[in-house]
Amino acid sequence: MSVDISDFDLAEAGAVLAAESARFASFGWMRGTSGNLSVVLARDPLRLAVTASGHDKGELTARDVVLVDGAGAAVAGGRPSAEAELHARVAALTGAGAVVHVHTVASVAVGHRSPEGIVFRDVEMLKGIGQPAHDVEVTLPVIANSQDMTVLGDRLEAAREPRMPAVVVAGHGLYVWGQSPRQARHHTEVVEWLLELELARR
Amino acid sequence: MSVDISDFDLAEAGAVLAAESARFASFGWMRGTSGNLSVVLARDPLRLAVTASGHDKGELTARDVVLVDGAGAAVAGGRPSAEAELHARVAALTGAGAVVHVHTVASVAVGHRSPEGIVFRDVEMLKGIGQPAHDVEVTLPVIANSQDMTVLGDRLEAAREPRMPAVVVAGHGLYVWGQSPRQARHHTEVVEWLLELELARR
Amino acid sequence: MSVDISDFDLAEAGAVLAAESARFASFGWMRGTSGNLSVVLARDPLRLAVTASGHDKGELTARDVVLVDGAGAAVAGGRPSAEAELHARVAALTGAGAVVHVHTVASVAVGHRSPEGIVFRDVEMLKGIGQPAHDVEVTLPVIANSQDMTVLGDRLEAAREPRMPAVVVAGHGLYVWGQSPRQARHHTEVVEWLLELELARR
Amino acid sequence: MSVDISDFDLAEAGAVLAAESARFASFGWMRGTSGNLSVVLARDPLRLAVTASGHDKGELTARDVVLVDGAGAAVAGGRPSAEAELHARVAALTGAGAVVHVHTVASVAVGHRSPEGIVFRDVEMLKGIGQPAHDVEVTLPVIANSQDMTVLGDRLEAAREPRMPAVVVAGHGLYVWGQSPRQARHHTEVVEWLLELELARR
Repeated sequence: MSVDISDFDLAEAGAVLAAESARFASFGWMRGTSGNLSVVLARDPLRLAVTASGHDKGELTARDVVLVDGAGAAVAGGRPSAEAELHARVAALTGAGAVVHVHTVASVAVGHRSPEGIVFRDVEMLKGIGQPAHDVEVTLPVIANSQDMTVLGDRLEAAREPRMPAVVVAGHGLYVWGQSPRQARHHTEVVEWLLELELARR
Repeated sequence: MSVDISDFDLAEAGAVLAAESARFASFGWMRGTSGNLSVVLARDPLRLAVTASGHDKGELTARDVVLVDGAGAAVAGGRPSAEAELHARVAALTGAGAVVHVHTVASVAVGHRSPEGIVFRDVEMLKGIGQPAHDVEVTLPVIANSQDMTVLGDRLEAAREPRMPAVVVAGHGLYVWGQSPRQARHHTEVVEWLLELELARR
Repeated sequence: MSVDISDFDLAEAGAVLAAESARFASFGWMRGTSGNLSVVLARDPLRLAVTASGHDKGELTARDVVLVDGAGAAVAGGRPSAEAELHARVAALTGAGAVVHVHTVASVAVGHRSPEGIVFRDVEMLKGIGQPAHDVEVTLPVIANSQDMTVLGDRLEAAREPRMPAVVVAGHGLYVWGQSPRQARHHTEVVEWLLELELARR
Repeated sequence: MSVDISDFDLAEAGAVLAAESARFASFGWMRGTSGNLSVVLARDPLRLAVTASGHDKGELTARDVVLVDGAGAAVAGGRPSAEAELHARVAALTGAGAVVHVHTVASVAVGHRSPEGIVFRDVEMLKGIGQPAHDVEVTLPVIANSQDMTVLGDRLEAAREPRMPAVVVAGHGLYVWGQSPRQARHHTEVVEWLLELELARR
């Protein structure tokens, strides 16, 4: 049971993650050095490329990436964020091929008002996460924050809704996932749009 | 009664729609893969170029376009959005040469507060849709959403105001039209500006 | 008493106005084809270069400019906006070398709440229009809109405050002026910042 | 006790400050010609490169920089802003290697509501300024504005919180510092994000 991920594969993943990060940073969703992105490179055992910690997310290069295992520990590359463990857990739990973690003002503001979860219904934009635009309530779970990634992962696992490829971490930000970096991007944009609508509707 | 639209004409239309889409996407009005744009290429019978479904609207190329007939069915190119039918109906109904469909937060937020329609009056910006800046009420209709494009088209036909080249679809977004892609763009910008003013005026 | 303004001078002014327009358009202050900019080219008699009417303000070229006289009538170039008359009047009245007219949401929203004028005090940003940051009230006048540029000019002349190089036209937008296009830009940014602060302070 | 800072060193610092300024200007945080940035070039005696006064902060070149001493007086280059004195004082007081002063709408709006200081707690983003994300209150001080930089510096010195590398000047804007221009940038982004969250939470 071995995986053979070449430096080339890792750099290719790094280039994709750098481009996606720059995009989210341009929206103001990764201020400071916040947030991190990942993509699954192997399943058995699990291997993810995760953006390196401590860098400006608008200035990543293809090399600012770390290969981690299913526990979020570095296999190759530099220092991963502690949050790499949660990326790996989301990938294992949901089968997602890519995970986005961003710090958006709307997610924290709306999560603060709705600590029991944010309910969406009758919005066409829900189709962007594969849900019907009519008559069905879709809940975006809100979980309490923690610095212990196992605790946070347990909360995410307990709270997550199959209809919703995202969770708000209270006082923190958004985790969103999809089959690929592009689908994870689109899911992130859709969820953030729904949250911005909540803010505008007040 | 035949129309002869060359691949070249279609690609040219695709290039224009890709540029217009990238512009609207940069404003955050086409998050995820939402929205679609069209331009009329022939009138008798009706033929429109419509942006292809499922793509990121900030990353379209000249080839990401579908030729559809007056019922929104594909004549050439890939898979059109189901909403192509509504584009065709708007073009037939209004004589417009171009139709813009975007998902803006302001249109959904204001439409939610004013389900009977949004009344504008005494705003200079109304001149941007050919209306007087003084003394005349201009209503932006709000229609209920539907996944059945015939139902949605019937609602649009019943509700539309001759003074207003746009309709809000509740919980969904905006349809706007004009003689050309550029005029449709300007009408879209004007209507969205009016909606953002409503939000700011609260 | 003749003025000799070469095509070259006019094109140079057009290039400056196109760049300034593109900047304001990127901020969303010239949606549709709204707004216009001018720069004084001669004083005796008065000659201004004014942006041409009906164009997208993010896509002007150096040739999209009209030379007008002190009444706003075209001397050379295409069709000026009717508002060119007001630009000329502002230049004559204030001695300004450049005039900016933009349609910002904040100016219309705040003008609607404060039809008697908007009072600023104790804000450092006032120094950006040459006013003290402490203890002095500075009023941004709000005048009623009109399509008659002579009426609008009379209102502007009656209402304007020597301390404030700007006027809000209710339901319409902002007129701002300065010695040069760059200073008019900075005055515009300062006044708009003050208006956005008013919106945020609510 | 002499310092030998070459023209080359100063130009290099100027290039960094120009790039950082352009970044902040693109966010709308340096409207008009407001704000200024500095970087420490020597400690004994103190020498800082400060952006030149009166320029558009989105258009600085590597030469638009002034070398100042610990009192903010020019050693080389053009005219420094009066605020250079405060930059020097912050650098001396905190040991910071770089200081950012920007005029953000959120800092003035939130400072107006919370003149006794703005308290943050239980927000992950606090980690971006080296603080814990849980259980600890971190206060962003708000000090009264003054045109006398000695008075303003005394207020900053009296009010500053060791946990917070930033101060709001009421009716004015933000001062933020860090070890390097990049860290000062990240601290600025984090503090502004926290202020925008306060606005959104209302």
